[in-house]
Amino acid sequence: MSDAVLETLVEDGATKIVLLVLDGLGDLPHSAHDWKTPLEAARTPNFDSLAPRSALGRLLPVAPGITPGSGPGHLALFGYDPLTTVVGRGVLEALGAGLELRPGDVAARANFCTVDAAGTLTDRRAGRISSETCVSLVGRLTREGTRLEDVDVMLQAGVGHRFVAILRGPGLSGEVTDADPHHEGAPIPAARALAPAAEKTTRVINAFMLRAREALRDQHPANAVLMRGLSARPHLAGYAERFRLRAAAIAAYPMYRGVAQLAGMTVLPTGETPADAFATARSRWADFDYFFIHVKGTDMAGEDGDFGAKVAAIESVDAALPDLLDARPDVLCVTGDHSTPVPARGHSWHPVPVMVHAPLAGADRAARFHEGSARAGSLGTLASRDLIAVLLANAGRLDKYGA
Amino acid sequence: MSDAVLETLVEDGATKIVLLVLDGLGDLPHSAHDWKTPLEAARTPNFDSLAPRSALGRLLPVAPGITPGSGPGHLALFGYDPLTTVVGRGVLEALGAGLELRPGDVAARANFCTVDAAGTLTDRRAGRISSETCVSLVGRLTREGTRLEDVDVMLQAGVGHRFVAILRGPGLSGEVTDADPHHEGAPIPAARALAPAAEKTTRVINAFMLRAREALRDQHPANAVLMRGLSARPHLAGYAERFRLRAAAIAAYPMYRGVAQLAGMTVLPTGETPADAFATARSRWADFDYFFIHVKGTDMAGEDGDFGAKVAAIESVDAALPDLLDARPDVLCVTGDHSTPVPARGHSWHPVPVMVHAPLAGADRAARFHEGSARAGSLGTLASRDLIAVLLANAGRLDKYGA
Repeated sequence: MSDAVLETLVEDGATKIVLLVLDGLGDLPHSAHDWKTPLEAARTPNFDSLAPRSALGRLLPVAPGITPGSGPGHLALFGYDPLTTVVGRGVLEALGAGLELRPGDVAARANFCTVDAAGTLTDRRAGRISSETCVSLVGRLTREGTRLEDVDVMLQAGVGHRFVAILRGPGLSGEVTDADPHHEGAPIPAARALAPAAEKTTRVINAFMLRAREALRDQHPANAVLMRGLSARPHLAGYAERFRLRAAAIAAYPMYRGVAQLAGMTVLPTGETPADAFATARSRWADFDYFFIHVKGTDMAGEDGDFGAKVAAIESVDAALPDLLDARPDVLCVTGDHSTPVPARGHSWHPVPVMVHAPLAGADRAARFHEGSARAGSLGTLASRDLIAVLLANAGRLDKYGA
Repeated sequence: MSDAVLETLVEDGATKIVLLVLDGLGDLPHSAHDWKTPLEAARTPNFDSLAPRSALGRLLPVAPGITPGSGPGHLALFGYDPLTTVVGRGVLEALGAGLELRPGDVAARANFCTVDAAGTLTDRRAGRISSETCVSLVGRLTREGTRLEDVDVMLQAGVGHRFVAILRGPGLSGEVTDADPHHEGAPIPAARALAPAAEKTTRVINAFMLRAREALRDQHPANAVLMRGLSARPHLAGYAERFRLRAAAIAAYPMYRGVAQLAGMTVLPTGETPADAFATARSRWADFDYFFIHVKGTDMAGEDGDFGAKVAAIESVDAALPDLLDARPDVLCVTGDHSTPVPARGHSWHPVPVMVHAPLAGADRAARFHEGSARAGSLGTLASRDLIAVLLANAGRLDKYGA
């Protein structure tokens, strides 16, 4: 459904929606575990009590066979078309580093690297310097000055040789090529503007590169920098505007807070555990209509290929759930942004189980919530980006289409 | 599939298709009824005899989470994209009032209302005058003259303060703003043209408003009128043109006859009951290739929140079914235009069960036809607008696509 039509149907309401995202929730049956998935193997008495009186189904984050990154996975869950709502690499890196991005900001991923006397790139990772060295070198660059023309350049050290740069000032654009040859043995190219509006940004980037080269001239092996993934903070219509929802984001990890901010959600400080997240939601229950709650542990366990850890992560969410249920959300949705199957040790393309619990959601009478029961559920298989309409409908916040 | 491609594949045939629409058929499991839906609780020996030798599935009328009105719900079942085939409020109101709309006609919803001496709207419903008073006032307006420029204005009284106006004449357009402030305490605005082609319509509407004001000057409380939802009868390619089908519509309620007329169907007079509808189909069996048969009782029971009445409405269709089956339709499709769950007391967004019985439809071996068996059926979950292709295919009326 087109966003424009959907948004004309949105009505105000007094109902509360909770979107509980277990990152990378979906998985595959494991022969070593009696052909169960982690969600199936986990003891989840609280999910089990909801499942029979809920609607189950599956979400397809982007398209069949397509493995989403965290950005598209979450944007789709939030109701944005992941194919047209493009968030650049630099922006995602900045959000992941916990940096605040304002409208108009441009972000880039950057590395320290090694060049020889002729200016040829000899090591894209500057000998894999330590994170401590990275902090020290970023400090040196910052001391050399962070203003170019009328643009502030803000740097944040990352892991090893990596850092993030944010440009803040008038008239910036992300339409700039990488200042990175992407392979060793070549000189570092200057950035080039891909559009007339990006001339200024290109000048600033190239001036920054030169200044960094100068500041690092006596350093070894990190004597130059590469920059890539330049991208502007996208201008998304937010939840208040699109869905008339006061939306809060509760996530322990910066990237998820950042993506939620792009959707206009208010980020609430919280702790590390699901129990912390639910307590945070309850402490601000009156102030918001919609709570996005993010749990990272499931994805980390999947990336580690650790079946037991994924089971434990699911069980820790289930164990803490009664506190959230006591707040009596009108609509509770439990799902993931994508699958991270243990045997894949990474994100995958498999549909993600989803459970919607609400008075008119339906009652699929499933004994439990897992990949198998979800497949037979009444929601069927939906595009993740259509989930928001189902949640709004269940919250009594969507008018009828047509007479 | 695009309409254009589909239509190139349509072939002539001698087969008969019946689309039997139980309005608002879909429902939810009820805890008070052993978690059964009305369709599940109903005794339906005739549906039961078809179910194992039919293909079952579910229809999504508009999009996930979207609750359709009757117009979009039926247009989609008829094979029109409900998002691009827009039927205006005035047109639907006119069709619902049983008025005939010709190409070029523009229809509007209208109210009697109360204005004070300064012209400020003080009651949008004119004190909720009776339907009898409405008839009398519409008579008064009609006696004052129904022709403005070269346009005939035809009025039909509705319930209470409501009436419908149809404009018939050359060069009319529905692109006109409402002559209605939509709230009390403001003057009634003149209609404004939204496009140059609507200037004449706007003049006619505003002249009608003034003439009505004059004619009602001594009346109280109904001393003025409001008009809104102006819309032109849409120009749809009809069933003969699109699908080479001579299509008949059998419906006791005017709105469904009206929407079918928009699709070029021939409306057959019929009685109130399913038995009447089936007898009507049989009486004209040789004259048509496609019969749309509409049953209203299921939707009314859902709107009333009456589980027992919905069960009874379904059972009355089933009981009458043998007469229709005796005509031996080549394709019999049983479904709804949307769900009207008893607990929702209104239309809803839930997918609608569908059963297609035809020699090559397949045999899902389901014991019965209901929401649960439909979810597991071989048709899967289809957009309602794709149903027509499935029916044409089962009728042997669609050529292969490509060699």
